[in-house]
Amino acid sequence: MSWIKAVGIGPGSLEHMTLQAMDALKECDVVVGYNTYLNLIKPIIQDKKIIGSGMRHEVSRCKKAIELANEGKKVCVISSGDPGIYGMAGLLLELSAKEGLDIKIEVIPGISAVNMAAALLGAPLMHDFALISLSDHLTPWEVIERRLDSAAQADFVIALYNPRSHERENHLDTALEIISKYKPKDTPVGIVKNASREGEKVIFTTLESVPIENIDMTSIVVIGNKNTFTIGGKMITPRGYKL
Amino acid sequence: MSWIKAVGIGPGSLEHMTLQAMDALKECDVVVGYNTYLNLIKPIIQDKKIIGSGMRHEVSRCKKAIELANEGKKVCVISSGDPGIYGMAGLLLELSAKEGLDIKIEVIPGISAVNMAAALLGAPLMHDFALISLSDHLTPWEVIERRLDSAAQADFVIALYNPRSHERENHLDTALEIISKYKPKDTPVGIVKNASREGEKVIFTTLESVPIENIDMTSIVVIGNKNTFTIGGKMITPRGYKL
Repeated sequence: MSWIKAVGIGPGSLEHMTLQAMDALKECDVVVGYNTYLNLIKPIIQDKKIIGSGMRHEVSRCKKAIELANEGKKVCVISSGDPGIYGMAGLLLELSAKEGLDIKIEVIPGISAVNMAAALLGAPLMHDFALISLSDHLTPWEVIERRLDSAAQADFVIALYNPRSHERENHLDTALEIISKYKPKDTPVGIVKNASREGEKVIFTTLESVPIENIDMTSIVVIGNKNTFTIGGKMITPRGYKL
Repeated sequence: MSWIKAVGIGPGSLEHMTLQAMDALKECDVVVGYNTYLNLIKPIIQDKKIIGSGMRHEVSRCKKAIELANEGKKVCVISSGDPGIYGMAGLLLELSAKEGLDIKIEVIPGISAVNMAAALLGAPLMHDFALISLSDHLTPWEVIERRLDSAAQADFVIALYNPRSHERENHLDTALEIISKYKPKDTPVGIVKNASREGEKVIFTTLESVPIENIDMTSIVVIGNKNTFTIGGKMITPRGYKL
C-alpha cells in the first residue's frame, strides 16, 4: 500500500524530531526534499532512495512524490519545521486533489521555526500572536503591509518569517516602520538565526535598534506586545498571572 | 547540578513528543504538571517523583518547581503542546527572574495544539495566521475583540484557542460575529476536538454553520482566509504556487 507523508523534521537538530516523524522516515521507500533539509537528516535516511532538488522547485518535488506513490512507493516529503506552516503540506494536498488522485496523504507535524526561536529567546509567544512572512514571492506586498499594520495596531506579538533576502533587502525596514507606527520604540525584539542549526545565534534588541544587516532568510524576528519585557537574557511576554 | 526544563509533551499521544522532550523526562528527578497532562505521559514517568495539581494552579506549580530546583533537584515542568504557546514557559521564567534566582531554565518546544489541529484538518495554516485565545480569564475581553477584528479585517487565517467554556458560553458566538463582518459566510472553518487524544474529532464546516454547541475547551477552531478551500475532506489554504 503506497502513501505520501508530509513530514516535519523540525528546525534542524535531530533531537527536535518527533517519534512519529522518525517512524515515517524509517518506514518509507523514498525521501523527497530540498537538498539543505535532506542534509540535516542525512544520518537517519542513509538506506533510503533520496530525491533532492534546489530552492523553488516545490511544485516539481510534489509532482515527483505523487508519481512515486502512484508507482506503489511509500514516500516521505520533508519540510523543515512543520510542513503545515509555510511548508509542503498544502501543495501536496492541492496537487493530489486537483489531479483527483486517491493517494493517502498524511501530514506529520513538526516543531516549527517559530516555536524553536521562541524557546531560545525565552517565552515571547505566551500571548496572542500573528505569524507573517515578508516574502512577496507568492503574496502581493500590499497584503503583507496590511497584515503588518493590523497586527501591530491590535498589539499582537508579531513573528516574521523570511524577513530579508538579497531580492528584498528593504522589506524588513518597511515592515519595522509600519510596526513602529503603533508599538513603542523600546518594544523588545528577539532575533534567532539558524535556530537549532550550525551557526545558531540569538539577539535581543528593541524595535528602534534592530540590526537589519545581520538578518537574513535563516532568521526569525519576534516583536513583543506592550507587556513584553527582557530580563536576565530572556524575552518574556506575560500571560497575565498575578505574581 | 539542578535545573528546570519547561517540557512540551505535544498534543497528547506520545508519538508526537520530540526526542529532546523524552530525554528531559528520562533525566529528571521530578515531574511537575497539571494532572490531566501527567496522565497523558504516565507510561514514561513511572519511576519519577510526580507532583500534580488541578487547573488554575499554574503559579503554585511553578513555585514548587523552583523550590525543588533550589533543593538540588532536576525538574521537568510539563505543558501540553508547546510550553511557549499559552504554556508554562513564561510563568517559570518570570517567577525565577522576579525572585532573582540563578537556576538554569530551558524551554523544550513541543508540537502545539494548533500545529496538530492543522495537520488533522489538512493544511489550513499555509499562509499568515493569527492565534487568539478567547479566554478572558487573564486578558480583558475588549483586547480580544480588537484582535479578532483586526485579524479578520487583514484576512489572516485565524486559529482560536480556548474557544468556549461553561464560564463563557457566548464568547465564541461573539467572536464569529466579529469575524463575519469581514470574512464571507462560506469561509471554510475546521474544528478539531481532543487532537491526538481519546475522543479526537475533526469537523469541516463554514463560518455561517459553526456547530457552537459541539465546541468546548478541548477544541481548536481554524477559520480560513479568502483563498482557503475544502476538497476531499481536507481544508487547504494555498500558499500561492501556480499549479
